[in-house]
Amino acid sequence: MIVEQLPEAVRSHVREAKRQGRIVGCVPTMGALHDGHCSLIEQARRDCDFVVGTIFVNPTQFGPGEDFSRYPRTLEADLDRCRAAGADLVFTPAASVMYQDDADTVVVPGQLATVLEGAIRPGHFSGVTTVVTKLFGITEPDVAFFGQKDFQQQLIIRRMVRDLNLAVRIVTCPIIRESDGLAMSSRNRYLTETERAVAGDIHQALREAIRLADCGECSAAEVALQMRRRLERSGQLQVQYAVVANPETLEEYQTEERGIEAVALIAVQLGSTRLIDNALLRFG
Amino acid sequence: MIVEQLPEAVRSHVREAKRQGRIVGCVPTMGALHDGHCSLIEQARRDCDFVVGTIFVNPTQFGPGEDFSRYPRTLEADLDRCRAAGADLVFTPAASVMYQDDADTVVVPGQLATVLEGAIRPGHFSGVTTVVTKLFGITEPDVAFFGQKDFQQQLIIRRMVRDLNLAVRIVTCPIIRESDGLAMSSRNRYLTETERAVAGDIHQALREAIRLADCGECSAAEVALQMRRRLERSGQLQVQYAVVANPETLEEYQTEERGIEAVALIAVQLGSTRLIDNALLRFG
Repeated sequence: MIVEQLPEAVRSHVREAKRQGRIVGCVPTMGALHDGHCSLIEQARRDCDFVVGTIFVNPTQFGPGEDFSRYPRTLEADLDRCRAAGADLVFTPAASVMYQDDADTVVVPGQLATVLEGAIRPGHFSGVTTVVTKLFGITEPDVAFFGQKDFQQQLIIRRMVRDLNLAVRIVTCPIIRESDGLAMSSRNRYLTETERAVAGDIHQALREAIRLADCGECSAAEVALQMRRRLERSGQLQVQYAVVANPETLEEYQTEERGIEAVALIAVQLGSTRLIDNALLRFG
Repeated sequence: MIVEQLPEAVRSHVREAKRQGRIVGCVPTMGALHDGHCSLIEQARRDCDFVVGTIFVNPTQFGPGEDFSRYPRTLEADLDRCRAAGADLVFTPAASVMYQDDADTVVVPGQLATVLEGAIRPGHFSGVTTVVTKLFGITEPDVAFFGQKDFQQQLIIRRMVRDLNLAVRIVTCPIIRESDGLAMSSRNRYLTETERAVAGDIHQALREAIRLADCGECSAAEVALQMRRRLERSGQLQVQYAVVANPETLEEYQTEERGIEAVALIAVQLGSTRLIDNALLRFG
């Protein structure tokens, strides 16, 4: 497995792979890799001939007061995981290489970035779309892999790829969960033991939403309310949102509808840690 | 010469050319082609193996009250010119193909887009960087060619390419002028006979700036003042700006300096027509 820190070096490897007719897959990450990330690399390994992982804790997608400085950096372990999952090349740039001092061109997403995470974390998604455009520019992938865990993010990236005619196909991979259902996240390691003990409630709330939608006896608003109640039961999770929305537009569903696809989206604060999770629903 | 209206068709031709190891050049235009555009295509022909021209009057770079609706559309003549200049493929998309109804991801330039044209035409450069990113996404060029005539534009596009790590090299080609020095522009055809008669004054003002800088006897501010006086002589040109600036940052030079590179930039209103022009200077 090759490890490179400079864009030109990555481009040169990728171009050589393409000259050989190989399909290039890219898995952008912020490191602190867990089984969720590994599942993305493994999927890229199955779908592509040359797999590029990127590890970069992107400062521009963190807001003031967010966890940029304490975000876990575990480069050596990350590289071991990339190797085991089948990456051919890992790009680990320094921030100064990614952002020159006077860099100020940005990619700004639209409506989809104004709600949910976008409303709570202003500027976050612009940081994401900008860095992902840059990573696509450097790694020139045919296919890029993102986790469903960051549902709004993959939706915004798909929209960006469409709107900017970027020559890459986006694949969204399923959420990987711990045994109690907690979605894997680099931020789970912030949780204290007590916090970790109730974090599984997030998945329980999503399971409740799936069950209620399946039965078809509830309106979307009622499903959202029941999710919120389940989250609030322990008294420890502070709900930022718990909604049932259109999975293409993220507009909240209000009325009772049959046979529609939906996504249940949750964000909670648990102690000093923010956690998000989601599940696709189908109203029966 | 191939003419295509759909992005997928263009991409397929370009990919085939690349598979054959050909270097791809792109010349983005809004049509109404003149010898300036042709010189870009001819340069692309010399530098590249597969030359793609694009013709698209991009609505998002026109402000309210600007000349979008009257902008000249001369597709058949444009295609003849592209053929004569050596294009292999011309992309002539409909606006509905370029912008889906709910498209809202944009590329936003920074500081460079806040001055001069950017100050007078708010949103203009964001329209430009967004459509150029899209055209690069569709035509995947190794090299793209822009005219020095739109000096600020080529600078902003270079910055965008750097900031977003786009895999394209930008080449800026010299301004092509009429016999009296008027820079070729699709908008010159708006001019009445009387207006056309004084339009050459713009170039005269730039020549005066070059002469004064060469002599090294003037400060940048004095050169700018003399340009403005030359422009105002006829009483017909309404000066929007006439400045001498740093050619990398577009910051206006104020003091007397020796041996520095500069760019003299002019925008005037002449009747109902806006004209811009520029020249590189070196203070002797």
